Order: sequence, then structure tokens, then C-alpha cells
Amino acid sequence: MGMVSNWIKDHSQEMAEDLSRINESELFKKNIAGFGMREKVIENLKELRSALFHSLYEKEVLRSEYISAHLSEHLNRAAIGINELIREVLVGKCMMDKTGCDRCSERAEEITVRFMQRMPEIRRKLSKDIEAAYLGDPAARFVDEILLSYPSIEAVSIYRIAHELFMMEVPVIPRVMTEYAHQLTGIDIHPGATIGEHFFIDHGTGVVIGETCVIGNNVKLYQGVTLGAKSFELDENGNPVKGIKRHPNIEDNCIIYSGATILGGDTTVGHDSVIGGNVWLVRSVPPYSNVYNSTPDPEIR
Amino acid sequence: MGMVSNWIKDHSQEMAEDLSRINESELFKKNIAGFGMREKVIENLKELRSALFHSLYEKEVLRSEYISAHLSEHLNRAAIGINELIREVLVGKCMMDKTGCDRCSERAEEITVRFMQRMPEIRRKLSKDIEAAYLGDPAARFVDEILLSYPSIEAVSIYRIAHELFMMEVPVIPRVMTEYAHQLTGIDIHPGATIGEHFFIDHGTGVVIGETCVIGNNVKLYQGVTLGAKSFELDENGNPVKGIKRHPNIEDNCIIYSGATILGGDTTVGHDSVIGGNVWLVRSVPPYSNVYNSTPDPEIR
Amino acid sequence: MGMVSNWIKDHSQEMAEDLSRINESELFKKNIAGFGMREKVIENLKELRSALFHSLYEKEVLRSEYISAHLSEHLNRAAIGINELIREVLVGKCMMDKTGCDRCSERAEEITVRFMQRMPEIRRKLSKDIEAAYLGDPAARFVDEILLSYPSIEAVSIYRIAHELFMMEVPVIPRVMTEYAHQLTGIDIHPGATIGEHFFIDHGTGVVIGETCVIGNNVKLYQGVTLGAKSFELDENGNPVKGIKRHPNIEDNCIIYSGATILGGDTTVGHDSVIGGNVWLVRSVPPYSNVYNSTPDPEIR
Repeated sequence: MGMVSNWIKDHSQEMAEDLSRINESELFKKNIAGFGMREKVIENLKELRSALFHSLYEKEVLRSEYISAHLSEHLNRAAIGINELIREVLVGKCMMDKTGCDRCSERAEEITVRFMQRMPEIRRKLSKDIEAAYLGDPAARFVDEILLSYPSIEAVSIYRIAHELFMMEVPVIPRVMTEYAHQLTGIDIHPGATIGEHFFIDHGTGVVIGETCVIGNNVKLYQGVTLGAKSFELDENGNPVKGIKRHPNIEDNCIIYSGATILGGDTTVGHDSVIGGNVWLVRSVPPYSNVYNSTPDPEIR
Repeated sequence: MGMVSNWIKDHSQEMAEDLSRINESELFKKNIAGFGMREKVIENLKELRSALFHSLYEKEVLRSEYISAHLSEHLNRAAIGINELIREVLVGKCMMDKTGCDRCSERAEEITVRFMQRMPEIRRKLSKDIEAAYLGDPAARFVDEILLSYPSIEAVSIYRIAHELFMMEVPVIPRVMTEYAHQLTGIDIHPGATIGEHFFIDHGTGVVIGETCVIGNNVKLYQGVTLGAKSFELDENGNPVKGIKRHPNIEDNCIIYSGATILGGDTTVGHDSVIGGNVWLVRSVPPYSNVYNSTPDPEIR
Repeated sequence: MGMVSNWIKDHSQEMAEDLSRINESELFKKNIAGFGMREKVIENLKELRSALFHSLYEKEVLRSEYISAHLSEHLNRAAIGINELIREVLVGKCMMDKTGCDRCSERAEEITVRFMQRMPEIRRKLSKDIEAAYLGDPAARFVDEILLSYPSIEAVSIYRIAHELFMMEVPVIPRVMTEYAHQLTGIDIHPGATIGEHFFIDHGTGVVIGETCVIGNNVKLYQGVTLGAKSFELDENGNPVKGIKRHPNIEDNCIIYSGATILGGDTTVGHDSVIGGNVWLVRSVPPYSNVYNSTPDPEIR
């Protein structure tokens, strides 16, 4: 270990100072969280999801008279935890904006209470999403198969939680939540997207649903579907314009097959349409459309 | 913490009861497992895979005279664990079906022994899959590179284990196993699929292989390939018909490039065919077919 | 447990011996690592990344006068750990090659020191990649959003670390590193690929960048893009030829949309080109090209 220990002795402190300076450069001042935020958000999601689906995240069967006491414990821990996280990002944002706000703690509490009040409504929506999965997949035989092994439920339950926080203008946390879902499932739903009831994504890997998408009721997506933005809208400096409608609308009762790419804020897929696999769609189609690629003729070797 | 602690004091118990009622609604009675099932299945897979590939999952090098004693310990723990899990889902299914069966424990033991007896055969098949990866990828230089860093081996080894349990009509567990593989690798193979020898999936993210697929020997898939169902077969209530052949057949020696979508139970890709990237294929092609999309001509700006 | 315990008593030892024999078969002698290698590599990556982005991986806020001492600890642990891993694979490779080399430890130390010296340069490149993400995504509002929730940064930071080791001819470890990134993000970048500055992959799931790709500066990829090999180059035994240029060149300022498949070592996408979603491209296109699939006309039901 001669060379390595010499390097440590002679150069490591100096390199650490160099790295520390890079970390503090300008762009990195737009920094409101960090420091274990990801782990804390994931921990909090576990409490929330244990309250929403108790049988799924508990190790042991509970006697039914204890279930609601148990759920209540999860809710309480979730409320305390999310309040702390919200306060942290609100304070961080205030410091970055130099607004000198003195009511971050109060706002965090208000948001936390409004958010917790949404839990039963989120749970009711998720029941419909589970029903959509059960009815939508011929391979599904038991409800626990869906709860235990369908990435759609995992991703959509996290999205529905994160969307509430996004609508209450909580920064950073909702994106960290949905990116955790993305990592688990390969399904990347922006917390700002608007998604109707009875929603199902089969298999799911590679699905992307952008921030300003509006999806109706009873829509089914397959893996690899992109509901994305065209990169065409640039400002005078060539940078993408922030805050405009960039992603498509999918109306009720649509089915979109694997690998279809649908782009643009002006693009609307009319209700009861079917978009085939691998289709590239950058303009609107009317209700009851079928849009399929043609299959190339085989050459025989 | 005034507002949040007031909410906890005044509303959390009531909300817990509300959530508990939603959890117990009708659809959720089709529930035979849960309660730590996912973690227990993953734990069991680790024992099985430590027995199948000892060098991969052990922390330390073992003297060769101890290796088989060590493998035997993994096998024993795996047998005891899987027996317990199988008993749990069989009992759950009996209670749901109200069949009043009194031999779930016995059936679980029978299945466990038959399953364990399949291990060497599974291992022999996996040796051929590893060989297929080594020969099939110009970037592979060492066998441990494949074992340590090829998602194909991870996904296919779990599929080959889960498929045995699926064939023995064990509910829920096989799907939980392959969904764990899906989460790790992005490769979603239904445990009911039939897959021949010397099988390799390169890169793998986004691959979907449906329940009633039949894949021959010496087949190579790339990432993003879908071997799926058309959603067209619906019953009189508009729901997908369960239990029919819905997914394609891929005969021996085929190569399917990234992002190809091949759908339908009547679709057969004849042996020695090559399907190009992003092809949409919903009808059969004969042996020795090449099927490629044409490339659009570039417009120069 | 009668049947299962009888099976354990009567058959498990024999089966363990059978499995052990399969493990030792010919192909498996090309084995230079294993035994906890994956976990050790991941542990080491955590130390390196804690040194590169201290705010991201620490649980607590540090007073600024302690930061560089803290980074220096991570650097020291990383140096000691990577030195040990490099020594292990060099010794393993020597034993496999039977070269009787007696300076593996010395070479490991040389490589470790050269590798550690690259850290500030890697960090500077990553700052530009983070800037590319911030400028390239209209949904990005804070830098920590990018650090905490953009898989591109996760995958590219691991790639840039692994690439240095790959260039120093360290076997196995670089691939284990990038496969860990692949598992986390769905982005599969071979450590041998050459990637310029200011690089961004949006969403990322399913992206594959092959070993001999050459990517210029200021390139943006979307999810599901394949920069891969044609499987056409086979030697006289029908096996893929190893060690030739098999993957495409993407010149400066290109944008490639989701699901495009670009294959072949002779394929060059000229600078300032845009390749649309789901395009299949197996030949070169000149600078300033736009390549889009046409959208099939909808049939109205």
C-alpha cells in the first residue's frame, strides 16, 4: 500500500478542497434540500402506503380489532414526517428566494393537514385503479397478485400521493417521490400530470407521462409509451420555455400499445381511440381512431 | 406542531377506520397472501440462487471441500422456506374457494419435494443460457462479467425457478418472483411462458414476454422487445377472456432487435428469422424471414 | 414436514454435490472475481459519489469548515477500497491467463493513484452534465431536483467513473459499476463508450449505449434510445467478432427522441441533427438532418 497511502497523505486533503469548491459553484446555490432528503421521502412513503394498503406492507396478520389502531399509527407517523419534510423544503426555498418569509412552519402545517385529509380519497381512486388492473389483464387471477406484483399499482399509488403535494405547490418532494417510483418500476410519471380514474399501465417499463399531460378516465397504457414534449419550443436564448403546456391530452377509454410515442401540448388523442405499438404521433386524432403502423413485408433469405 | 397534532388527535382514528373499511371491500376478498409475502419470496429466491450459483452470492471464498456442505445448507433452508410459502398460498386459496380441503399441508410438501428435485435441471439449463450470453455478446470477456453484470441471467434464472412452480399450479408466488426480477432488470417474463434452451436477452430493459408465449431454442432478444397480446379478445361484458392463447410463438434461432412489438396468439415467427428494431408485427412470418422497417429519408435543415 | 425433511435427509447432500460439479464445469473457469464483488463495488461507488457530491449522500448538514475534512475521509476510504478490488481482479486475471505475473499488487496501486487523480476532472464534467439537465428540461426548477431525482445524473456519474477504470484496462469492475447504474436507472451505458461534455438523457429508461459508441458534445437522448450493434459481423464459427467498432457515432448538438434505434459501427449521425421517436436508422445521415417517421393515417371506427 505504499503508493496509495502516499497519495492519501500527500494529495487527498488538497483534492477534497478542490471538490468542495466545485460543489459550491454558482448553479449549486439553487439548492433547497439534499442531506438525506431521498431516504427521508422514501421512509415517509412507506408509512403512507402502509396506511393505504395495510395487508401489503405488514409482516404479520393482525386481528381485525387492531387494524384501525395500527393504520392510525402509520397515519400519525406519516403526518409528523411529511410535515417535517415540507417545512424543510419551504424554508430552503425561502432562503434561496431571499423572501424573508417568517411563516414557513405554519404553511407546512396547513399543507400537511390538507394533504392528510386527502388520504381516503386517494385510497378510493386506487381501488378503481386496482379494479382496472384486475379487469384489464387476462393473466390476473387474484387481487393480491395485483397488489404484490403489478408495477402499475406501485407507480400510480406513489403518483397519486405526489400529485396532491404538487398541487399544493410543495417543491422538490413530489419529484423525489415519483422518481422513487420510476426507479422501482421503470414508470416515470411527473407529479404534475393529470390522470383520471380507472387507470392501468400494463408491464410499464419505460412509460413516460409528462408534467402537463391530461389523461381521461379508463385509459390503458402498455410499456414503453411516451406522452412527452416536442423539444421545439425554445426561448430567445435557445433554452426550453418553462411553464407552458407541452404534453398531450388522452381522452377517455383509449388504449395505447407498447412503444408508441405521442408528443406535444396541442396533440389530443380523441376518446375511444386505439394507438398501435411503435406509432409516432405528433398531431391530434379524432375520437374512435385506430392508428396502426403497417408491417413491412418479410424478405425470405 | 399545533395544527398537525390537533389533526392527529381529532381525525386520525376516524380516517384509519375509513381506510380499513375500503381495504375490506368486495374485490379485496380475492386475497390469498399478503403480509410480508414479497419479502419472504425474495428471501427464498436468495437461498435458491445461492445454491445454484454459489460463487456469486457468497462473501468469501470457500475451500472446495466445504462447498457442497455449504450448498446443501442453502438447499435445506430453501426447501423449508418454500414449503411454508406454498402452504400459505394453498390454504389462502382454499379459504377463498371455500373448498374445505384438509390436505393443503400435504400438497405443499409434495410440491416442495418435486420442485427441489428440479434444481439440477434448472442449473443445467442456466449453464446453456450463460453460454448463450458469452457467445452472443462481443463485449463479454469473462464469465464472471456475465454472472455479475448481465441482467439476462438474473431475469432468466428467476423465470426458470418460477416457471417450475407455475407448472405445479402454485398460485401468486411465481408472479411475485418474476416481478422481483422485473424490478431488478426491467425484464418482465410471465412465469407461464415456455422458453427453450440457450436463451439470451441483451441489455433487456423493457422486454415483455407474455404468459402463453412459446419460444424455441437459441433465440436472442434485445431490449424493449414485446411478445404480447392483442387486447381484442373480449367476452360479452367487454372484459378480456382469461385462459386462452394470447401471445406469439418464436421458433428456433430467431433474433429480435430492440423495440420490436410482436402480438397475438396466432402470430408465429418462423425459425431462423430476424425481426428488425421497432417493427410492429401482428401476423405470422415464414422461416428465414428478414423483417425490417424502412428508414425515412433525412430532410436537411 | 415429513416429506420435506425426508428429502433434506436423503437427497440434499447429493444434489449439492451435483450442483457443485456443474458450477465447476469448463466455461466457469473463465472466472476472475465473484464472492461479494458486486456488493463491494457498490460500496466503493458510494464512497466515490459521496466525495463527488457531498450534500447528496450525507444525512446531516455539515458546517463548512468540516466539509473538506469529510470529503477527504470519503476519498481515502474510496482509494483503499478500489485498490483492493483492482488487485483482486488483476490477480484473478493473471491466474486465469497463467502469466505468472508477480507485480499485480504494484500495478493495482499505480492504477488506483492514477484513477483517484481523475476525480476533480470527473467532477468538472459532471457539473456540465448537471447544467445540461437543468437547461434541457423545462420541468427542472431547482438543482437539487436534478441531483435528487434525475436518473441521467446517476447513470452518467457512474459511467464517468467506470470509464476511467475501463481506459486503464481494469477488467470486470467497470461493467459491474455500469450494470449497477443500469439496475438503478434503466440506462445501460457500456464503460467503454466515449461521451463528450454537456450530456443529458431525459427519463432514460431503456437507453442502451454500446461499447464502441462515440458521442460528441451537447447531445441529448430520450428514454428508449438504442445506440447499438448490428449482429451481422460473425466469425467463421458464426460467433460475433470481438474487439471491432460496432456502435454508431453521434456528432455534436444532436437530439434523439424516444425509442429510436441507431445501429452499426459505420453509422454516423451528423452534427446538429434531430432523430425522431421510433426511427430505425442503420446508415449515416449528414449534419443538420431531421429524420422522422411518418404517422399512419387514423381509421375511424
